[in-house]
Amino acid sequence: MRAAVMRNDSLLVDDIPDPAPGPGEVLARVLACGICGSDLHFLRHGRQMVALGREMSAGAPGGGMSRLDLDRDVVMGHEFCCEVVGLGPGVTGVNEGDVVVSMPMVVKGTDFTDPTAIEAIGYSNTYPGGYSEALILSSMLAIAVPNGLDPRYAALTEPMAVGWHAVQKSGIKPGEAAVVLGAGPVGLAVIAGLRLVGIEPIVAADFSPTRRALALTMGAHEAVDPKSEPAVQAWQRIDGAKTLVIYEAVGVPGMIDQAMRDAPRGSRILVVGVCMEEDRVRPMIGIGKELTIQFALGYDPFEFASTLRNIAEGALDVQPLVTGEVGVAGVPQAFEDLAHPDLHAKILVEPALD
Amino acid sequence: MRAAVMRNDSLLVDDIPDPAPGPGEVLARVLACGICGSDLHFLRHGRQMVALGREMSAGAPGGGMSRLDLDRDVVMGHEFCCEVVGLGPGVTGVNEGDVVVSMPMVVKGTDFTDPTAIEAIGYSNTYPGGYSEALILSSMLAIAVPNGLDPRYAALTEPMAVGWHAVQKSGIKPGEAAVVLGAGPVGLAVIAGLRLVGIEPIVAADFSPTRRALALTMGAHEAVDPKSEPAVQAWQRIDGAKTLVIYEAVGVPGMIDQAMRDAPRGSRILVVGVCMEEDRVRPMIGIGKELTIQFALGYDPFEFASTLRNIAEGALDVQPLVTGEVGVAGVPQAFEDLAHPDLHAKILVEPALD
Repeated sequence: MRAAVMRNDSLLVDDIPDPAPGPGEVLARVLACGICGSDLHFLRHGRQMVALGREMSAGAPGGGMSRLDLDRDVVMGHEFCCEVVGLGPGVTGVNEGDVVVSMPMVVKGTDFTDPTAIEAIGYSNTYPGGYSEALILSSMLAIAVPNGLDPRYAALTEPMAVGWHAVQKSGIKPGEAAVVLGAGPVGLAVIAGLRLVGIEPIVAADFSPTRRALALTMGAHEAVDPKSEPAVQAWQRIDGAKTLVIYEAVGVPGMIDQAMRDAPRGSRILVVGVCMEEDRVRPMIGIGKELTIQFALGYDPFEFASTLRNIAEGALDVQPLVTGEVGVAGVPQAFEDLAHPDLHAKILVEPALD
Repeated sequence: MRAAVMRNDSLLVDDIPDPAPGPGEVLARVLACGICGSDLHFLRHGRQMVALGREMSAGAPGGGMSRLDLDRDVVMGHEFCCEVVGLGPGVTGVNEGDVVVSMPMVVKGTDFTDPTAIEAIGYSNTYPGGYSEALILSSMLAIAVPNGLDPRYAALTEPMAVGWHAVQKSGIKPGEAAVVLGAGPVGLAVIAGLRLVGIEPIVAADFSPTRRALALTMGAHEAVDPKSEPAVQAWQRIDGAKTLVIYEAVGVPGMIDQAMRDAPRGSRILVVGVCMEEDRVRPMIGIGKELTIQFALGYDPFEFASTLRNIAEGALDVQPLVTGEVGVAGVPQAFEDLAHPDLHAKILVEPALD
């Protein structure tokens, strides 16, 4: 089958062997798969991330990424919606023709506490991700897409769940205010999640006018260019009284320190932007203002499923986020395009377009 | 009066004008004043700290430190117990001869929300701290020392309140476990506070054998040399099951990153060690394990008062912490001695010893 392959730290389109479903697994045809900023990072910093995964698992056999071998092929893509086209042995509850989404992981065996029993779809040497014509899912993780929802919007379940989880993890409550630094896909998902909780005001900041417009569409009450007015200053202008939670969704070095410097005394900073590089902070600022920094990653199965439901029922309108659609052949160019944040939010890969 | 004066970024003993109490203030003779590690930091990094205070108050007239002028004299010392020897106009509720402690601040006027109305005793150009024969207190902040408690132990109210506040701020509950990195005065105060809450096990780590022995005396269940066994590893050996809170009480660059690397997934890190310098962290580690970093500073009036009561009633035995006593003339040498963490926990300045 045709796939966009990460090989020797670059991306190329090639034919790779068709995958075959094992026990409890299904073969699924990719209908749509979003390109995630993490994959752009991974293409550039993959070896560093694998090394960090190994340091964190401290010699023990760790979760997905620590076992990756980047001298072998990797097919990325973990924000997918698929149609089931083949069943492995012992599969029940899923049928050919079902349109499904799934958390991007395959569970091998039944010991969920064994990190080596989990393969991360899209960051694996054996399980291809969604930048391809087909992939393998764990049947027990597949969730049927309801309400005849367009598979292109169902594919946004994963990134929207990341934002929803960050909002949940921050513990923000109605009556508090939010500043969202960065209106890329993660920041936009956070804004949508904050709006669902009923937060007001939500102040977004991004250098890009396109992204500021998207932030307002997704529910921000104010969107500022940090060159003209820092986000916390804008919040002070329009509110300044409520308890503030700052969401850092940019993920480049320096952002955490900047958020700490601008944060009001006693406030919380939720870091959801993935900064791959070493970063500098001034702990004195955190101490002087007794700040809390909470890091957030991913989502749990309930957050994932409720995000799909919110999209299908119209509580989350993700349509504005889709700013581009390409076939598998278009993936390398799409990666180039996404380096310019002014042009895009989410580009979908749809193999049917090849 | 005689005082140890910070002048031109160094410490010398000199005669300075006797202070006089204004309205609502009292003149108090210093009985004992602990030397705080923050003062060692301040002597070395004072100008940097003042600059940071100004950056944090963003041009507005800020709290105590941002208004300091280090080209003028500063008398440090904020962990004191005194005897009231003179009353300013309008003072009620405090009498000459009372032995008192106080949070190290003077409130000028009645608008507590005005940061310029507060002078930090020990970090002020106008209010001398306790490395001197006498100082000025706000009568409303003075608390009588109960139970005939030795003023030398009452002077430890302030540093013990810092540890108690850190324990409270972390929200740790019985049934959870604690690792305390660093068994200097702050770490030892944290250990004592954890013991008061009923935490078990408490694992302390320090390079110094003297400080490890003190950690056990103050209530740690295990004290390890991190060169031989990292603290989190020791906790895994003797517990490894409970929810863990890590207290960072060293305050040198690299400690936060190290705590993040060693922390179990989902755990909390309470930073109470004051790192004055810029620090490097790897946000990816925080994200990968969804860590929470909470910074803590100082204490509130209730925590301060209850710490004095705990010392006076014997719930907190601070006697082992006093490892040296000097007169005002001995302060510069005591600062030198405290640079060697193996020799001391707390040195008290007692002007009566001159």
